[in-house]
Amino acid sequence: MTAIAFLGLGAIGRPMARRVAAAFPETVVWNRTAATAEAFGREHGVRVAPTAADAVRAADVVITCLSTSQDVAAVVADGVLDAIRQGAVFVDCTSGDPATSRRLAHDLAARGIAFMDAPVSGGTVGAENGTLTVMCGGSAEVLERVRPVLEAFGTKIVHCGDVGAGDALKAVNNALLALHVLSTAEGLAALQRAGVRPDVALDVINASSGRSNASMNLFPERVLTRAFPRTFRLALLDKDTRIAADVAREQRVPSPLLQLTSELMAMARRELGEDADHVEAVKMIERWSNVEIG
Amino acid sequence: MTAIAFLGLGAIGRPMARRVAAAFPETVVWNRTAATAEAFGREHGVRVAPTAADAVRAADVVITCLSTSQDVAAVVADGVLDAIRQGAVFVDCTSGDPATSRRLAHDLAARGIAFMDAPVSGGTVGAENGTLTVMCGGSAEVLERVRPVLEAFGTKIVHCGDVGAGDALKAVNNALLALHVLSTAEGLAALQRAGVRPDVALDVINASSGRSNASMNLFPERVLTRAFPRTFRLALLDKDTRIAADVAREQRVPSPLLQLTSELMAMARRELGEDADHVEAVKMIERWSNVEIG
Amino acid sequence: MTAIAFLGLGAIGRPMARRVAAAFPETVVWNRTAATAEAFGREHGVRVAPTAADAVRAADVVITCLSTSQDVAAVVADGVLDAIRQGAVFVDCTSGDPATSRRLAHDLAARGIAFMDAPVSGGTVGAENGTLTVMCGGSAEVLERVRPVLEAFGTKIVHCGDVGAGDALKAVNNALLALHVLSTAEGLAALQRAGVRPDVALDVINASSGRSNASMNLFPERVLTRAFPRTFRLALLDKDTRIAADVAREQRVPSPLLQLTSELMAMARRELGEDADHVEAVKMIERWSNVEIG
Amino acid sequence: MTAIAFLGLGAIGRPMARRVAAAFPETVVWNRTAATAEAFGREHGVRVAPTAADAVRAADVVITCLSTSQDVAAVVADGVLDAIRQGAVFVDCTSGDPATSRRLAHDLAARGIAFMDAPVSGGTVGAENGTLTVMCGGSAEVLERVRPVLEAFGTKIVHCGDVGAGDALKAVNNALLALHVLSTAEGLAALQRAGVRPDVALDVINASSGRSNASMNLFPERVLTRAFPRTFRLALLDKDTRIAADVAREQRVPSPLLQLTSELMAMARRELGEDADHVEAVKMIERWSNVEIG
Repeated sequence: MTAIAFLGLGAIGRPMARRVAAAFPETVVWNRTAATAEAFGREHGVRVAPTAADAVRAADVVITCLSTSQDVAAVVADGVLDAIRQGAVFVDCTSGDPATSRRLAHDLAARGIAFMDAPVSGGTVGAENGTLTVMCGGSAEVLERVRPVLEAFGTKIVHCGDVGAGDALKAVNNALLALHVLSTAEGLAALQRAGVRPDVALDVINASSGRSNASMNLFPERVLTRAFPRTFRLALLDKDTRIAADVAREQRVPSPLLQLTSELMAMARRELGEDADHVEAVKMIERWSNVEIG
Repeated sequence: MTAIAFLGLGAIGRPMARRVAAAFPETVVWNRTAATAEAFGREHGVRVAPTAADAVRAADVVITCLSTSQDVAAVVADGVLDAIRQGAVFVDCTSGDPATSRRLAHDLAARGIAFMDAPVSGGTVGAENGTLTVMCGGSAEVLERVRPVLEAFGTKIVHCGDVGAGDALKAVNNALLALHVLSTAEGLAALQRAGVRPDVALDVINASSGRSNASMNLFPERVLTRAFPRTFRLALLDKDTRIAADVAREQRVPSPLLQLTSELMAMARRELGEDADHVEAVKMIERWSNVEIG
Repeated sequence: MTAIAFLGLGAIGRPMARRVAAAFPETVVWNRTAATAEAFGREHGVRVAPTAADAVRAADVVITCLSTSQDVAAVVADGVLDAIRQGAVFVDCTSGDPATSRRLAHDLAARGIAFMDAPVSGGTVGAENGTLTVMCGGSAEVLERVRPVLEAFGTKIVHCGDVGAGDALKAVNNALLALHVLSTAEGLAALQRAGVRPDVALDVINASSGRSNASMNLFPERVLTRAFPRTFRLALLDKDTRIAADVAREQRVPSPLLQLTSELMAMARRELGEDADHVEAVKMIERWSNVEIG
Repeated sequence: MTAIAFLGLGAIGRPMARRVAAAFPETVVWNRTAATAEAFGREHGVRVAPTAADAVRAADVVITCLSTSQDVAAVVADGVLDAIRQGAVFVDCTSGDPATSRRLAHDLAARGIAFMDAPVSGGTVGAENGTLTVMCGGSAEVLERVRPVLEAFGTKIVHCGDVGAGDALKAVNNALLALHVLSTAEGLAALQRAGVRPDVALDVINASSGRSNASMNLFPERVLTRAFPRTFRLALLDKDTRIAADVAREQRVPSPLLQLTSELMAMARRELGEDADHVEAVKMIERWSNVEIG
């Protein structure tokens, strides 16, 4: 029977951990803010560990779902590296950066622990329904060992390449999302000022060649309605976009659009703050344009 | 009974004209290269005029489907303005620019002729099946008068705003298409060099938030296969992207991504030539990156 | 003896007009805001016309020094075109755009009036001392006819090319200025956050290959001191930068840096307002960077 | 008496080493390509070491002048770290990157060896004449210890800040140089196509606010003459520009112009090759513009 340690009970981590605990009774959770972990433990009848080191001690599989690779590295350095037992697998579902993941993999390998980066997409809804896409970076053999655990929350489990490959792909996907949000805003702001209503513009674009997930879903549901629900923080999308830009630069791929998107997201983060939702980046374009899309 | 003059039998114009002629027996066509018009006339039993001026003389509705607004202006100046009869409607299905369309509308209005810009999307397949989207700029009353003609080739007929609004919307849609082609290429080139196969990357992106029409259709069908069929010239997409960039600038909408896309398309046009297909813009990114996506 | 009409008594126009009037007693001035013209007339003993049309009626040479080519076109349309006499020369010292200058030249030529664009550089100090650089677009013959008038305020009088060439060159010079202000700010903000004091950085850069007029003069005198004197409006530099960007685009010169500079200046104008000095564009970079250079 | 080891006899290193050896008789040199070192030794009567480790063994001050920080790290790892004696100072005159310099400083400090990054500007002429600017990153105390050595080749010796500060400043200076070369080319290409000769344009710009070291020196001497002498490799300027872009990104300074410049230099490097001179980046803009500046 597989013992799981699940570290990080954020917006995505909570529903993932709930599903993992339902499938694997020997699951223990930990969260930096203890109150969150205790509430989660009470509600779902899951064991809560007082420290990350305690959580991982008996685990066959350690799953992390934190904000950044730096957070993962900090947890690893704070007792986890010493507590985790040889032969365990460390699955990092954080949207991380490949360089830090490779370093973690290296440090863990020295202790006989396999590492796999496994960021997910699908949002809170996908996490709740267990229909996430899981982007795996590491050896195929390690992936097969943890596949049953990943199946607790994911339906599309993809082996992307070596350690860091999952991070890289997640980052590029998210950078394209950021690019679509910003560029669709530029286009709709220009059209609105030229006398074309954004609902009309989206109706046409979404039947044409310029459509994207952003134009088909985010703008109709969140921008035109001015709802801007807070589902995924702009600060995290800025971080992901920068990771993608850094990957492109490391790989010596001239990538003017990805790089510019990273700069624009950094500006948006400064303008809109740490708590803003990613779609609120639209408001920076609106401010520059003196128009409200809707 | 409505007499139609259809000017411009290019890749999109030909199937549109065929459908118009089928619905409106009093259709006469004209094309700059006479041989094309004559072949079309023979094949479909449609009357061919020797000059554009001859074509429009008896027309209730004049339809143009040329490469650029400059081409339309040249045809108008070359006898059409004098030949077209008062009360006719001039429907320009060219992917034009709003400024030239407004000038044409002004000049035609002085002769009692209404103008509507009505660029289309849906490609040659949409034109053949009569399922184009038609983006109309002009008065609602004029649109109602010509709607039966538009219905010969379009199913989604959208009133976008005043003269130029159709052009503006078509241009922005196409600029987003150009942006998606280029940025997806940047991302996939970086991932491939980082060890992630592009088919794997597209499989994940197309199940995630970064997907676009380009990632869902163009890259799997045209780039990964290295087929690059010539369906829509890069030179025309460059022209459309520039129109969108100019609209944004005229409307004082800071639009760094649209502007940069316009510059990149201009570079791609210089690198790849006037005959290249729009998706071949990918090859510029590949060359910069020293990688072939696929 | 040469009669001069001088239209436009702004920050640069006033000292220019004063020097022209000193050299050519038959000078009459006009300004949109009448009080400015009257004060100028009283102070310098120069004749003031109540309207632009009145001012130009007897002139051999008409000089305009307004904010934009649109302002010049408006004045020409508002009676000047009809009032100006055949054989006169129209010298436009506005930092204008080539397209509007060419149209004005065309309209004036139909009345037998020669046009020359002749924007100046050197600032208010150069205007006061009569040491401006004058960038002339038009025929060499027209330039020779007006050279004595230009010498009243300029020492470096350069024939740049046909009508519009002076505008184009002035715009490119100013776009480079804008680029230098913004990019030096980016670099200094990054260095300051990395622990390098901006005065030290400028000391080194100004002895090295990265120096520019901005780093050598504007930053030490205006940014490090936080003085930001209002000598040249950001709104006007935004206008000039956009003209340069448009010239490059018309000439099909891919120019990613000039285009991006134009977008950044448009953002800065929106952020900092119509009254800000051009060097205050630095404050936008500072805000994004959460640092004050100095 | 101070014993010096000078590692790296490239275009800048050679004249620097010659001056150091003249001032400090106990100088020993090393170069990866041994033939270069031997020729240098014969010509200047300087002792040559067979390996870097041999060179540093007796040194009080080790000076490195290599292409990249990666080269320095490789030399350090290849025996130098073990051979260098406690109490020595390691002065790295490479145009390096701050992150690697900080890592080297950390590794050397563990052996009791102080590190200072000290990249230089002034080119081969400055190196020959001993008039280089030296940008020092490290403690003020270490700088004072090595100042006499630096004075062998530099006249302007500037303490920029902690370890990495010299690298950061050198990189930003060079990024501005790259930006000026590219943007001046964009502007001149556009003007030339608009009918303004580049020599006329430069004459005006160099008397106006848009001037830079590039417009005042590089374009008149190297571009208009089509001489393009090979004095500083484009590949190295690309590397420096990227370091500056990375510093800005690490410091969370939105820097769209520096980032875009880095992308353009990467493109230019791919187009023009590893041996091209930095000013040849102009040729990429020329090719895009279908014009030769001159």
